[in-house]
Amino acid sequence: MNLTTVRLKKNADRRIKAGHLWIYSNEIDTAATPLTALTPGQQAVVESSTGKALGIAYFNPNTLICGRLISRDTKHALDASLLVHRIKIALSLRERLFPEPCYRLIYGDSDNLPGLVVDRFHDYLVVQIGTIGMELMRDEIVEALVKVLKPTGILLRNNGGARTLEGLPEYIEEAYGTVPDELPLVENNTQFLAPVRTGQKTGWFYDHRPARAWLNNIVKGQRVLDVFSYIGGWGVQAANHGASEVFCVDSSPLALEYVHKNAELNGVGDKVATMEGDAFAALKELHTAQERFDIVVVDPPAFIKRKKDIRNGEQAYRRINEMAMRLLGQNGILVSGSCSMHLQRDSLTDILRASARHIDREIQLFAECHQGADHPIHPAIPETAYIKAMFGRVLRV
Amino acid sequence: MNLTTVRLKKNADRRIKAGHLWIYSNEIDTAATPLTALTPGQQAVVESSTGKALGIAYFNPNTLICGRLISRDTKHALDASLLVHRIKIALSLRERLFPEPCYRLIYGDSDNLPGLVVDRFHDYLVVQIGTIGMELMRDEIVEALVKVLKPTGILLRNNGGARTLEGLPEYIEEAYGTVPDELPLVENNTQFLAPVRTGQKTGWFYDHRPARAWLNNIVKGQRVLDVFSYIGGWGVQAANHGASEVFCVDSSPLALEYVHKNAELNGVGDKVATMEGDAFAALKELHTAQERFDIVVVDPPAFIKRKKDIRNGEQAYRRINEMAMRLLGQNGILVSGSCSMHLQRDSLTDILRASARHIDREIQLFAECHQGADHPIHPAIPETAYIKAMFGRVLRV
Repeated sequence: MNLTTVRLKKNADRRIKAGHLWIYSNEIDTAATPLTALTPGQQAVVESSTGKALGIAYFNPNTLICGRLISRDTKHALDASLLVHRIKIALSLRERLFPEPCYRLIYGDSDNLPGLVVDRFHDYLVVQIGTIGMELMRDEIVEALVKVLKPTGILLRNNGGARTLEGLPEYIEEAYGTVPDELPLVENNTQFLAPVRTGQKTGWFYDHRPARAWLNNIVKGQRVLDVFSYIGGWGVQAANHGASEVFCVDSSPLALEYVHKNAELNGVGDKVATMEGDAFAALKELHTAQERFDIVVVDPPAFIKRKKDIRNGEQAYRRINEMAMRLLGQNGILVSGSCSMHLQRDSLTDILRASARHIDREIQLFAECHQGADHPIHPAIPETAYIKAMFGRVLRV
Repeated sequence: MNLTTVRLKKNADRRIKAGHLWIYSNEIDTAATPLTALTPGQQAVVESSTGKALGIAYFNPNTLICGRLISRDTKHALDASLLVHRIKIALSLRERLFPEPCYRLIYGDSDNLPGLVVDRFHDYLVVQIGTIGMELMRDEIVEALVKVLKPTGILLRNNGGARTLEGLPEYIEEAYGTVPDELPLVENNTQFLAPVRTGQKTGWFYDHRPARAWLNNIVKGQRVLDVFSYIGGWGVQAANHGASEVFCVDSSPLALEYVHKNAELNGVGDKVATMEGDAFAALKELHTAQERFDIVVVDPPAFIKRKKDIRNGEQAYRRINEMAMRLLGQNGILVSGSCSMHLQRDSLTDILRASARHIDREIQLFAECHQGADHPIHPAIPETAYIKAMFGRVLRV
């Protein structure tokens, strides 16, 4: 195989050697190796300013992150064989840690497959390709997944916003076998059906599994409110683990339809009620109606999508958490989730402190959860860590 | 009750209103209310610069943190009755979350009882008093604990270094009933005996319970190394949960004697071996002997005791984690613990990244644990959060 070479500027090799996988366009020595010579998605050997080979990356000359390392060994370019190898390594972690084949199988950079996400629902796979470098490997990805996992079907859920930046079209299509519109999965001993074509992202969020397991341990006999419920990840599990009554709030009728479906699936349809509407308005309405809950779960969509949203986003977290605390009965428990990569753990702690003090209460944080083991963190890439869930007891003092 | 008043300087009330419990000596308006007028341990009403009462604190004019708030209600000074109230609130959290009465019952500031720590071992309590304000309440503390918990015995383990700063003598004595030298406890389905008079701190560390539970889930058939094992918190639990072989390293002969005792207690004495010595030297020796393990646990004592130790301490974490990684077999798992409050979570992540890269490997962090729910975090007091444990798979790339 004859790959072209991309040379980095002086010292730009450091971050790569230190473990990072991304190359920014301003780090390329374009005098020596012009980026314009590369076609979008092309693979090339990356070398330091002194000519030392660092590995192979795929490139997109049109994006700020112009290169993503896919191998530190210049003998191994990205092809079906390397994909098989990487998928096997990723699979071995999941098989070791999860009792059932329902998990994120491939988590991009953290599994050394930048731009690729694969969620597994028993014998079906839902794939998200986020970069043109990976898109060019589409057939090899499907081939490798079939080889390693022998799935019944593979769905390409290629309609994420990130694709636009890469100049990729958005589409959803079957790449292998036939994939039904809803797929079964099991999480923490609870059955779910996920709308893999019409739902959010791949149809399901496996990332909060540890926090939901924590919740399941403490819900027996409790009245639970699940705000931003989506299809019932928290709420239906809570009902299935003994909550006396569960209220799910979401703005999407499709999501709430699935809450009911999923509750029925677990034989707890009679314990789960839903409320359609904007979360802020719904919490206000519940407060006016003097409703009180033993446990309130608030797991909003990312209020902070970009760094510039931090200030407004933190305000939104402040407001929603305070509203949630107001709905708690004596010594009630708040579960406060966040999937904003840009919301630091310490900021969330401080938001909870401020929300509690603002209504003359205190919050005692007794548990802190992170994304599940199927979403491992790459220690050189902070962006791979994004999930947080804090459990706090709210006390009058 | 007629309490004297301590007035804060302008704006010094903000932190207290925001939830904090500590008052620094430079925050007192000593012109209005001289600190010298207070006797060590004396309680006083705290007021803002404008004369608004903020609550009651106990004071020690001789320490940098001169006041600790014990109530936001000026009607409730610290006495047996308030102690009973606070102990009941703390107990209700633990009883809700733990199946057995073995836990930290009172965790100082986080349970609104600054200066007081109580660990529970079934019907026995081991108490640590860290401030003169609490020391003056010694009899009331014992009285309140007896009232709420009806224990068989209470041991005062008052020999922490913090006491010297407060001008308090160090002593260990029975305050109620008779307390044996070793007390049984159960953690994650494993039985232990803790040397409550001669061991570290209260004799046992309940703080790493969630991380040990995580480890227990993945040890079946694995060869495990437990570095800085103390009396076997990690290692014996691992053996009890199916590890094929466990090696405990510690520098204390007493600790290792208890490792064996605790292993026998769980019927896994034949699976647990010990090695006495300095951890760094021991790991080097194991490496020279070409020993390899599936899982290595490194849970050092606080390498960073004060802020000025951060640089050297981080170096020590770097070295010990790298040595541990070298002892791992293929795709082995490192469990890296830290009890240094001054070691930030992101710093530990970075230390693990650097250690792995230095030996040309990568670490995939798949789980992150924190202190157990019996060590809740006070959101206004970052010092109450100190435990971290990272689980990483170490890969050759």
